[in-house]
Amino acid sequence: MEAVLVGLGSMGFGMACSLIRAGIPTLGVDISPAREAALRERGGAGGPREAAIAAADAVVIVVVNAAQSDAVLFGEGGIAAGMKPGAVVVNCTTVPPDHARASASRLAARGIHYLDAPISGGAARAAAGRLGVMASGTEAAFAAARPALDAMAETVFELGDEAGAGSAMKAVNQLLAGVHIAAAAEAITFGMKLGLDPARTVEVISKCAGTSWMFENRGPHIARGDYTPHSAVDIFVKDLGIVSDIARAARFSAPVASAALQQFLAASGAGHGAEDDAAVAKVYARNAGLELPGGG
Amino acid sequence: MEAVLVGLGSMGFGMACSLIRAGIPTLGVDISPAREAALRERGGAGGPREAAIAAADAVVIVVVNAAQSDAVLFGEGGIAAGMKPGAVVVNCTTVPPDHARASASRLAARGIHYLDAPISGGAARAAAGRLGVMASGTEAAFAAARPALDAMAETVFELGDEAGAGSAMKAVNQLLAGVHIAAAAEAITFGMKLGLDPARTVEVISKCAGTSWMFENRGPHIARGDYTPHSAVDIFVKDLGIVSDIARAARFSAPVASAALQQFLAASGAGHGAEDDAAVAKVYARNAGLELPGGG
Repeated sequence: MEAVLVGLGSMGFGMACSLIRAGIPTLGVDISPAREAALRERGGAGGPREAAIAAADAVVIVVVNAAQSDAVLFGEGGIAAGMKPGAVVVNCTTVPPDHARASASRLAARGIHYLDAPISGGAARAAAGRLGVMASGTEAAFAAARPALDAMAETVFELGDEAGAGSAMKAVNQLLAGVHIAAAAEAITFGMKLGLDPARTVEVISKCAGTSWMFENRGPHIARGDYTPHSAVDIFVKDLGIVSDIARAARFSAPVASAALQQFLAASGAGHGAEDDAAVAKVYARNAGLELPGGG
Repeated sequence: MEAVLVGLGSMGFGMACSLIRAGIPTLGVDISPAREAALRERGGAGGPREAAIAAADAVVIVVVNAAQSDAVLFGEGGIAAGMKPGAVVVNCTTVPPDHARASASRLAARGIHYLDAPISGGAARAAAGRLGVMASGTEAAFAAARPALDAMAETVFELGDEAGAGSAMKAVNQLLAGVHIAAAAEAITFGMKLGLDPARTVEVISKCAGTSWMFENRGPHIARGDYTPHSAVDIFVKDLGIVSDIARAARFSAPVASAALQQFLAASGAGHGAEDDAAVAKVYARNAGLELPGGG
């Protein structure tokens, strides 16, 4: 197999390294020539982009949203036009299920397979080839993508033979993840207002029925006052925004996710969009007259 | 040590059995004579209530709310008047922190210690002596309560020397627990609306960053359509109601917990108050035109 990976952000770069480590020649494509060069230094393929795309058995896409995915695949100089029939697009971008179905349909017209393959896990797991992939697509799409999936993922959840199911599951996961981060911030600051030390709250609740994966992961950021952006506030503005868009289109009332989205919007609006998503706690602190650890 | 335990519901009965198993003579007190008799059949102490209260080193209270706690301790024929100085009230009831402080103060005037000791864990852990206890109170209160705590709890979180901190931590835990149950229902039904099988959603998300203790515990109830009340909708109407009351009094804005409370209120208002709290999913299903597993 030969591969092209589009989008060398913190997730995509690690995934490209995992492909290379598995012996799959991989050309990295990014808007930043510096990132492309950095991947070549890590063993990435070189040479002209057009030739690599024409030769690729799999093109893995790890961009920010549906609009970027469209630009990459179908825009001016888009990749789809240069791919060979029988190759597969493995789209790891978080997009609405309808968008995944539409992309699959457009590529099928060119004889190109499409795997709807959003990912779960942070940059560290991406670099280690240990992501979770929520995948759906035809049997042929899975078969064509298999070597790349094996290189990048610890677990591939196979969610059926149609594009859209993978993106639907990703939306469900992001709804919960976003709600749980906002709830962690709400609960920890609520405890502070009642006189509880945030580090002690994190320690105790992590062992009680109120815990969540996000509480245990992001709670310590709040307790330490460390807002280094492992995943930024604006990522949840985007992902809960996608959830909100899908829910509105489906006439699905999602009041808890809505409330969480408003808090992330407030955090971004107050200037914290590029900080770690745990900085949603700053909205709660400001609204409650509290000083967070680290002085936030 | 001799003990009296007030409130032989599903939690209190199991806790009384744990005290008895640890060799602590324990008289059970309940509004239901049948439950009192059932505890005697399990080895509980008999004889006149007044004598047991006068002799008790610890009175453990496991009732529904602050009003019941007040009635038990300070109402007509209240227990406080009959207790000996140096004994301890171990209050496991979910109450606001201010209420815990007030109770401690009223009892201190009689020379009685007070341990603010809300509990976490279900009926099975109560019966096994494996609860989590979020406890705060004076050193003397902890010392007096120790044999009872050892019998009932797997973990005692010691949260400082003043009543109120235990109840504050419990409120933080219930905020998260309630939000996570509502979010689980929201996410699973959202997935259904997008075509995902609820059992598959529970399976996949349990292994992803969107998971929570409550998602993994209550999600299967929704996927199976089993609303046998392990913990009822109305418990979270009450507990998120307490959170809401505390937050309002403290001028703490808690929009995510608020949204979750509204969904539990809707579930109770629609007639599901006595069903398992996972029945909050029925509100989402009704609002989205979905049929839940089990036909709910």
